Amino acid sequence: MKNLKVPLAIENYIDNLHKRVTEAPLGRYLKDMAGAYQDAESVLVEDNPLVYRFWTFEPFPGGEGELAFGMTDLYPGLVGQEYFMTAGHFHRGSGGEIYVGVAGEGLLLLLTRDGELETRTVVKDTLVYIPSGWAHRMVNIGDETLRFTAFWPTGIEHDYASIRRDGFGYRVLKTEDGPKVVKCK
Amino acid sequence: MKNLKVPLAIENYIDNLHKRVTEAPLGRYLKDMAGAYQDAESVLVEDNPLVYRFWTFEPFPGGEGELAFGMTDLYPGLVGQEYFMTAGHFHRGSGGEIYVGVAGEGLLLLLTRDGELETRTVVKDTLVYIPSGWAHRMVNIGDETLRFTAFWPTGIEHDYASIRRDGFGYRVLKTEDGPKVVKCK
Repeated sequence: MKNLKVPLAIENYIDNLHKRVTEAPLGRYLKDMAGAYQDAESVLVEDNPLVYRFWTFEPFPGGEGELAFGMTDLYPGLVGQEYFMTAGHFHRGSGGEIYVGVAGEGLLLLLTRDGELETRTVVKDTLVYIPSGWAHRMVNIGDETLRFTAFWPTGIEHDYASIRRDGFGYRVLKTEDGPKVVKCK
Repeated sequence: MKNLKVPLAIENYIDNLHKRVTEAPLGRYLKDMAGAYQDAESVLVEDNPLVYRFWTFEPFPGGEGELAFGMTDLYPGLVGQEYFMTAGHFHRGSGGEIYVGVAGEGLLLLLTRDGELETRTVVKDTLVYIPSGWAHRMVNIGDETLRFTAFWPTGIEHDYASIRRDGFGYRVLKTEDGPKVVKCK
């Protein structure tokens, strides 16, 4: 049962999600995404915290109709009034994605190319379907690490550049009345 | 935030997995899959239990690269020495699937068209990648309800007929030493 074939290799890595989380993920530090925050420059003078880390698993070979899987830990934190968040990206062409909350409390921002915004609260066992054409950025609005899993078709091209260039159009601010979504001026 | 558009409709149904599980699933009773068990005929004289139930969610519209989602409750039980199991199916053409264990203890059977078998134990948070070309049947080898989620690309055609006609080639029997996978004669 442990003598795995190449097509089943991904299972070899992730027999159990919680085993895998001790192994090497990719990290995103604040300096990697400084432009995303309104106040990043002033904060960066002093500090460069890890904002999130993620694991990605792609099957081999990744033919038509195969799926990729990822898991993200997004830490709690603030940059000025803004919560820690992921960089956010569109998919090029057609391709949906599913997010499932594992722990913590997130606010998922969904954005069309026309600037239309939808938001979803994500907690443990929340499943959100992200249809083709909607950029997605997760914001940690809680006090603990937000963990969520993601499922998407292999072969999708990720467009991070559009968000890096144009921003997301909205910011999520911590206020005395809780998280507030505000349109960028 | 509740004024959803059509492309996000699936999220409207499954804001939270555990809310949804009280709503209408599809059921598979023993008589629906009598031929799958060696001893089904004799058992059916007396009883027709619910073997499993499942929910399927498909996004609208289900274009290229969109994903479907399902959740299954497979009950504990025996038909003779055989554990309760799902019908099992191939995908026609290319297309993978991901299973994630939620509760209980399962044994996943994976089978190629050439009769090659692989098995995986599935418990809470186990993620198994099912590559293109492998039929999949879940067997509940525990004492409680086995719950697992599934993710697959929309547009896949399910081939249940091959397994119904030819069987799975192997049976999982309850023995004093635990579950035992045996080849059909």
